[in-house]
Amino acid sequence: MDDLTGFYFEDIEVGMTASFGKTITEADIWGFAAVSGDTNPVHINEEYAKGTMFKGRIAHGILSAGLISCVLGTKLPGPGAIYVNQSLKFKAPVMIGDTVTARVEVTGTVADKGFVELKTQCFIGDRLAVDGSATLMVPKKG
Amino acid sequence: MDDLTGFYFEDIEVGMTASFGKTITEADIWGFAAVSGDTNPVHINEEYAKGTMFKGRIAHGILSAGLISCVLGTKLPGPGAIYVNQSLKFKAPVMIGDTVTARVEVTGTVADKGFVELKTQCFIGDRLAVDGSATLMVPKKG
Amino acid sequence: MDDLTGFYFEDIEVGMTASFGKTITEADIWGFAAVSGDTNPVHINEEYAKGTMFKGRIAHGILSAGLISCVLGTKLPGPGAIYVNQSLKFKAPVMIGDTVTARVEVTGTVADKGFVELKTQCFIGDRLAVDGSATLMVPKKG
Amino acid sequence: MDDLTGFYFEDIEVGMTASFGKTITEADIWGFAAVSGDTNPVHINEEYAKGTMFKGRIAHGILSAGLISCVLGTKLPGPGAIYVNQSLKFKAPVMIGDTVTARVEVTGTVADKGFVELKTQCFIGDRLAVDGSATLMVPKKG
Repeated sequence: MDDLTGFYFEDIEVGMTASFGKTITEADIWGFAAVSGDTNPVHINEEYAKGTMFKGRIAHGILSAGLISCVLGTKLPGPGAIYVNQSLKFKAPVMIGDTVTARVEVTGTVADKGFVELKTQCFIGDRLAVDGSATLMVPKKG
Repeated sequence: MDDLTGFYFEDIEVGMTASFGKTITEADIWGFAAVSGDTNPVHINEEYAKGTMFKGRIAHGILSAGLISCVLGTKLPGPGAIYVNQSLKFKAPVMIGDTVTARVEVTGTVADKGFVELKTQCFIGDRLAVDGSATLMVPKKG
Repeated sequence: MDDLTGFYFEDIEVGMTASFGKTITEADIWGFAAVSGDTNPVHINEEYAKGTMFKGRIAHGILSAGLISCVLGTKLPGPGAIYVNQSLKFKAPVMIGDTVTARVEVTGTVADKGFVELKTQCFIGDRLAVDGSATLMVPKKG
Repeated sequence: MDDLTGFYFEDIEVGMTASFGKTITEADIWGFAAVSGDTNPVHINEEYAKGTMFKGRIAHGILSAGLISCVLGTKLPGPGAIYVNQSLKFKAPVMIGDTVTARVEVTGTVADKGFVELKTQCFIGDRLAVDGSATLMVPKKG
């Protein structure tokens, strides 16, 4: 239970899950725009955003991917794992004030490569906002 | 020359490209950790990170995806486009101080759905750090 | 469609315009106070600000100048131009939640110096919040 | 000596001065880019910036104006004063790591309007980085 040690490959089983939830605020939009340079007006211009199908500013889709990265990097598999790939399908917008919960579930392992495959999803309540999957290379005990 | 209007579907052709480059600083790591909650020690704990194969702190992989989002959302296709999906393959780590250039190139269009497909890559100099592709739904003029 | 190249002096004509709009949030006030050290209570102390003629916190005037800088530095004249001078007249306060659009228009050029002169204004809807002008030195093709 | 009360018009005399100094860090550049949306590569892309006459990333010019705003809004005239206008002449670039000191000096007063006029300058050591002047409307005791 320290913050430096994740799961070893041998300890990971299909069906294991982990999650991380966070309310997305204006400060998160601001911070993500700062990090990414993404000043798309649908994220930072309320007047423009009101005229879109979303009826207001939405969070950057990749911001939700950041919550998935949080679960993968701090919980399951956790520190020591190396990100190999991530696929993302954006299903519903995240509005300011929404609480987004990223949830990952182990769906498979590839022993010779040390790969762990996970379903990676973000929910707002019961609504699926982001669907997808990830592969990480996880260290072995040996 | 306004910031609110992107390309219409009819104006997009295979082979069009756009890019955005940025030097990744400690402030970016800090900002991405704040937004995402991803406090994986390989990003924020230099002592830990020195002991890894990276020999120092690396940027979050999804931070590079943010630069891709910047190009897609502000340049090509630009404002008005809706993110449908994004795949990411992490090929090389991004260290603090690296200048990362996200580059997108239109690879296909699907007229009945208004979909535009793009190759999405991040480079550090000539080295490919992130490979992948994206699909966006782009508004039509009609 | 790259982010590194602005207009050359030869391509700039009187009457060209560009704009950038953004909703000013608490995160912006926070960020500007952090960067500038400007902790004037009218920006950060709601109880104090309620007792002023503004009836609430207002954005820093220079924050609006930052939006002008955004247009000049990323759109018109864009990267490569050098800021020579900027004058600002503060006409109306910007409240939290206001969407501010910075708009610049080329009003003159000085060929021997490579100077471009622009009218620089910030609007909240139709209301002029900041008036002024700027001069930038713009690279020539030769 | 509280943080809510500035000078009254009657207490201001020509020749009074105040200053505020701060080391400009990468976090300041990052924060100013976030607030302003100004992602000009000369501020955020070290590879690009190395190829310019500045030989590296420079701070946004308006960031220095923020330090002037800090002095005016918190020290002289201080809280209660209203910003009327500001002129800025950019004389030398501010590099990351430079300590910038904003210094203001009262140069005149206009009794019927309650205006106070100040010379406003930013220095890096003895080098003048920003020159200019400001006018503020300052409350009277009556």
